[in-house]
Formats: sequence, structure tokens, C-alpha cells
Amino acid sequence: MSLKEEALKLHRLHVGKLAVAPKMSVENERDLSLAYSPGVAEPCKEIHRDEALSYEYTGKGNTIAIVTNGTAVLGLGNIGAAAALPVMEGKALLFKRFAGVDAFPICINSEDPDEVVRTVKLLESQFGGVNLEDIAAPACFDIERRLIEETNIPIFHDDQHGTAIVTAAALLNALKLAGKSVGSVRVVVNGAGAAGVATVDLLLAMGVQDIILCDTKGAIYRGRTEGMNAMKEAFALRTNAFERRGALADVIADADVFIGVSSAGALTPEMVHAMARSPIVFAMANPDPEILPEVALEHGVLVVGTGRSDYPNQVNNVLAFPGVFRGVLDARASHITQRMKAAAAHAIADLVTVSELRPDYVIPKPFDPRIAPHVARAVAEAALDEGVARRAISPQEVFDRTASLVRR
Amino acid sequence: MSLKEEALKLHRLHVGKLAVAPKMSVENERDLSLAYSPGVAEPCKEIHRDEALSYEYTGKGNTIAIVTNGTAVLGLGNIGAAAALPVMEGKALLFKRFAGVDAFPICINSEDPDEVVRTVKLLESQFGGVNLEDIAAPACFDIERRLIEETNIPIFHDDQHGTAIVTAAALLNALKLAGKSVGSVRVVVNGAGAAGVATVDLLLAMGVQDIILCDTKGAIYRGRTEGMNAMKEAFALRTNAFERRGALADVIADADVFIGVSSAGALTPEMVHAMARSPIVFAMANPDPEILPEVALEHGVLVVGTGRSDYPNQVNNVLAFPGVFRGVLDARASHITQRMKAAAAHAIADLVTVSELRPDYVIPKPFDPRIAPHVARAVAEAALDEGVARRAISPQEVFDRTASLVRR
Repeated sequence: MSLKEEALKLHRLHVGKLAVAPKMSVENERDLSLAYSPGVAEPCKEIHRDEALSYEYTGKGNTIAIVTNGTAVLGLGNIGAAAALPVMEGKALLFKRFAGVDAFPICINSEDPDEVVRTVKLLESQFGGVNLEDIAAPACFDIERRLIEETNIPIFHDDQHGTAIVTAAALLNALKLAGKSVGSVRVVVNGAGAAGVATVDLLLAMGVQDIILCDTKGAIYRGRTEGMNAMKEAFALRTNAFERRGALADVIADADVFIGVSSAGALTPEMVHAMARSPIVFAMANPDPEILPEVALEHGVLVVGTGRSDYPNQVNNVLAFPGVFRGVLDARASHITQRMKAAAAHAIADLVTVSELRPDYVIPKPFDPRIAPHVARAVAEAALDEGVARRAISPQEVFDRTASLVRR
Repeated sequence: MSLKEEALKLHRLHVGKLAVAPKMSVENERDLSLAYSPGVAEPCKEIHRDEALSYEYTGKGNTIAIVTNGTAVLGLGNIGAAAALPVMEGKALLFKRFAGVDAFPICINSEDPDEVVRTVKLLESQFGGVNLEDIAAPACFDIERRLIEETNIPIFHDDQHGTAIVTAAALLNALKLAGKSVGSVRVVVNGAGAAGVATVDLLLAMGVQDIILCDTKGAIYRGRTEGMNAMKEAFALRTNAFERRGALADVIADADVFIGVSSAGALTPEMVHAMARSPIVFAMANPDPEILPEVALEHGVLVVGTGRSDYPNQVNNVLAFPGVFRGVLDARASHITQRMKAAAAHAIADLVTVSELRPDYVIPKPFDPRIAPHVARAVAEAALDEGVARRAISPQEVFDRTASLVRR
């Protein structure tokens, strides 16, 4: 049976992937009077008195919403809220499996960013955080920014930041192999969508000095007039310090790193030859990468990563999002800062030891049970350092709790 | 330890009552590629092609939203969405425990009916039904009516219809003891809130001919001018055929049945003495009933029921809502009709056999494992008869499935 057929069969067999599970048993009248009326009035009254007690008496502190409007689902495009549900159920399953987070899909049938924001704000009180998922750019940037500003819970658009964290982790290790430092390399990011923009942001925060963001019209630079918008204008000021102009083929010359979140075939062997020595390539277009790994290697690329599980060095968001939210929820962080994302990237990278590090192994595999505990600890520690943690919990306690939650 | 202290302790210990549980295991790369990317694209594409396939490939068909805005929570009043969450988690726990329904709280932080309606409509695609809960009257009527008209999934306001169904069930059996028929009795319902209105509606649909609805200003009758609104005007036309006027104390004379969903002490011993022979009293104000059962019995009441678990004949909604939704979901009913509610009431009543029937036992106990299967079967059968079922399933199959789902 093909993977496609088996996927359909499995989804049909289980009729979806998520169930709700009681955490308290109700086996007699006494149980009923404690879990429900009249006993349940007591936690209600406590929370009415002090809303922060939601974290003590309800599941809020371990429950996140996986919010989508179905406008950019996988590589399928705008298929709508209903058709996005299988992905959101799958994501929820991974949150539970990899980090014990109770995640529930919230599929909002609207392409209007105002309605998405409004809906999430109306539901805010019951969730400890929000994972935005598969919302098309540029609306996703506006939705995320407004939710960060207008809610009191952490907001994380995984298509942006999950990809950025895992890419950064892979890059940190690839640079070790190339003998280059973060502060000295030239990086070209091709694709100014959700993932590209967030990756540039995170790499800047992590110390990359020379970075060029390209869209379909080529390098974005200060003073470019064609195909610009407010976001690109802002990036023009923060990137491309030498104001390089031209197509990808032009600005790729002498680059140390290519990060593609664009489309199949965007990186040619000629471009690879123009790169600096020991080139590093992350070609993450799905399912067909910007350049096939075998072709990249044949033309002298030192390290190549893709989004695919059938090649080495898969840049897979599942390395980041479970542990990130575990750490965020345990520290009760109000926000997810760049430093917390950088800490997650370093934690992932550090799980590949110097003796293990090879061009075809710069990043751990998804089922490495160490990942979520290490990421959660690093994220919680950074949250505490940044002053965004609202609970005093030791990073080691986060590590131990996470390790106990991850099924092996 | 008091019940209040124990309730707080238990909620704190478990940190809420609900978790999310995966229905598929993810233990290796193959599992990951089936439950998530790339395999998950297949059910997405199928649902995009035909949205009805959500019922086959996602949890939609077994998942309902428990929707509240926290404006009328238990007897606590308008405590808001956040403080309502413990009740909604408890309700979800009961849905799962008693009928295998996956229910998830949706706590909407708004007192504006338009926003409640809009939010539910935006989330409609992921749920198989909606249980409205603890929304204050009169907004609850408008919200329910609009959601029934504007969505394609069944909508059920439990404070209205759950109470109505269980009260009707208890009344059916009490009338057997009194030797009276539904069509011949005079019923007075005191309290024109959510529960009172729905109870009148259901009893009318079940054949009660002589019914008077009272509010704080007394009987509602055709032509009354004080304290009326559109809803009361409509009831004035459909009830109180003899246009009786006056306070409860006036219209209770010669009534066979008193149903109180009002406030403590509303029914006095003097009023009881004025009722017809073998009076039946359901005094459901919580926690203090309209008349205490011991007082009612002392003054000649034949059958008395309350909302309390520490007296016989508890009118408890948990007898109805799990089985109702089980039947509705299994038959994939588009609506919940009066006939379906009446069928639920009869199914509950019929679980007390003639030989068991006594003044202090007119209704089964919540933990009777027969309830949900019988209610689900009756509701599904009525849905099929009414033409609102969207799936061909035999009532017996609903019964068997429900019986297998109910933990014992």
C-alpha cells in the first residue's frame, strides 16, 4: 500500500487523531459532586476572585490552541479551515507525544485577519498559549504581531519560528564543520515568506552580520522600489549592509550559506560553484527542494539539509515546537523572545556532539528523546533570564518534568 | 474535609480535569509521515474536495463544543468566561464518561450575543455539535435560535433542554403514580428563564393542554401589559388557554403539577393545600428549593423532586445530555427536534419499571449504566423518523455502540 493510501486508511480507521481524556474519575455521587455541581463552584469562585488561579484549577497552564484559518496548509495552499483540521489534529498529537502539551485545534473559517485576531482574543482566557499554524503571509505577520500586543499569553507562529529555530540549529553545526563563525559568514536567504523572514530575524539576533534576503525579484536592498512593502522596507534597513543588488544568481557569489524557503530548482549548480569555499545549503522547498542533495554534494556543497525525511539533515519543526512550548508553559512565559528561540536552537545543535558531527549529521533525529527536555530547559532558562517568566521554576525542574512526560 | 475544600484540593491536584489524548501512535518516522507530513495531506485534500468527509477523516463527528460566555454560571451569576472554565471542563468530563463524546470547552469572553454567534460560526467546521451552557436569558434564546438557523450542526442549550427533558421524564412517572394523564393535568411552571421556557415548550409538544407560565409578576396571559417581551407574548398565545390572571398563589389553585425553576421559598404550604388532589411538585431552585421536600410531603404532596442529590428524585441534566448528543452524533442529526427531546424523556422515564415506581423513585439515578444507551437509541430513532438524520444507522446499533462506550 502506498503512503497516501495508508494515511487515508489510518485516518479513516481512527476517525481522526484526537480525543478528550478526563483527568479525574467520576464513579459515584461523591465524585460527581466534586468534579461537577455543587463542588465545581469553588474553583469558579476562586478564579472569579483572581483570574491567575486559572493556572491552578484548570488545564489552562498546559493547554494551547493550534490556530489556523487554513490559508496556507502544507504545500496545498488555501484549502480552508475544515480541510486544515487533519494537520491541526496531527500537530496536537505531536505536541502531546513529544512534550506532554495538551493542544487543541482552533480552525477559524475566515480569511480576514481581524476576525482571526478577534476570535483568538475572545478565547484567550482558556489557553496558556497559541501556536499559529498554516496562515498565509503576509496576513500571518499582522495576526501574530497584534496577538502578541493584545493578549497576555505567548504567541508562536510555527511556520515562522519553528523553521527558523531548527534551521539555525543545523546552521550552527554546519558552520563548525566548515570552520567558520556565525559573525563572519555571508548568508543568503531565498524566499521572503513566513519562514524566510523569521529565519533572517533569528539569525540576526544570533549574531549573523552579513545576510541578504531575496524574494522573486532578487535581493532586497535599501532603496529598492519594485515589489516592496512595509515589511520588506524594514528588512532592507536591517539586512544587506553592502546594498548588493541583483538576482539570486548575482548575490549568491561568495556566499557561505544558502537557505532556501522558496521553490524547486531555485539553486542551480552554477550558483553553487559561485559560492565561497565549503558551501552550506539548506534547500527546504517541499516536496521538491531548491536543489537535490545529490546534485548539491556533487558540485562541492559541504553540508546540505532539506525538509524531507528521506534525506539526511531533515530540518523538521518537530525538533523545536514541543520543547519550546513545554519550556514556555512551565515558566509561564508571557512572550517568546528571540533569545528564547536562540536558546532553543543552541540546545538542539548541542545534542550533536563533536565526535558525532558529520556533513550528513548536523542535526538530531525527531525521535531522539533528549530533544524536548533540553529545548524546554533552555527556553525556560532564557525566559527567566529575560524576565518574561511568570513562575519561579528551576530550569532543571523543567528538564526533569519534560523528561518524565516524553514517552519513549 | 468539607466538600468545598475537597473540590478545591482535587482541582489543584489534577490541575484541571481535561487532557488531550492521541488516537494514533507516533513511534517512528513512518508513523510520523502517516499522521503528519507528508501523509496528512491526503485527508486534507479529500476534505477540501468534499467537506462532508470531515466526518470520516477527523474527530468532527464525535467532537462537540461546550460553548459559554460565563454570564449565568451555576447559581453564581455572571462570573465571566475564565471563571466558567471549571464547569465546562466538568461538563466535558461527563460527556466523555457517560457517553464517549469528546467535548471541548469554548469559553467566549463576550456578553455580546453577536460575538458569541459569530465565534461559534467561525469554528463550526471542526465540531459535530454545540452544547450551549450557562448563558444568561434572554440572550441565550437569541443565540440558540440564530445558531440553529445559521449553522449546519445541531445546537442544544442544556440549561433549557436538558432540564426540560429530565423534568418531563420525572413528570411522566409521577403522573402514573397520581393516576393522571398528560393531556388532562393542569401544570404551573414558575420561572420564565431558560429552563422554565424550554420546559413549557417541551410539555406542550408532549401533549400537556393546560399549562400556565409564571414570572415574578405572576401568570403570563394574553393581553398582559406589565413586564412583557416578545418571547412572553408568544407564550401568552400558546399557554394559559383560560387566560387566568394573578400571582402564583392565585393560579396554583387546582393545579396538578408545580414546576419551579425560580427561587427559594416560592411555593408555600398554603399554595400546596390549594392544589388538586395528589399534587406533584418539582422544586428545582438551587441550592435552596422553592419548598423543602420534607415540608411538601408533610403538606400532602404525592411526589416531590428537586435539583439536589441529597434528596430523592434528583432532576439532574446528566441523565439527558450525554445520551442525547450520543444519539445526535451517531445519527449525524442536523437538528434536535422537540420529538427527539420527548423521545429522550420517555426513554429516561421508561427505565423506572412499574414495580419499582414509588413516590421517592420516579427517575433513575445518574450512574445507572442503562441511561445513555436507551436515550441515545431513542434520540437517534426519532431523528431518523423526523428526517433530520444524515447517516443511516440503526437505532439498535446506536444502543450497542453507546453501551460499549459507557464505562461501568
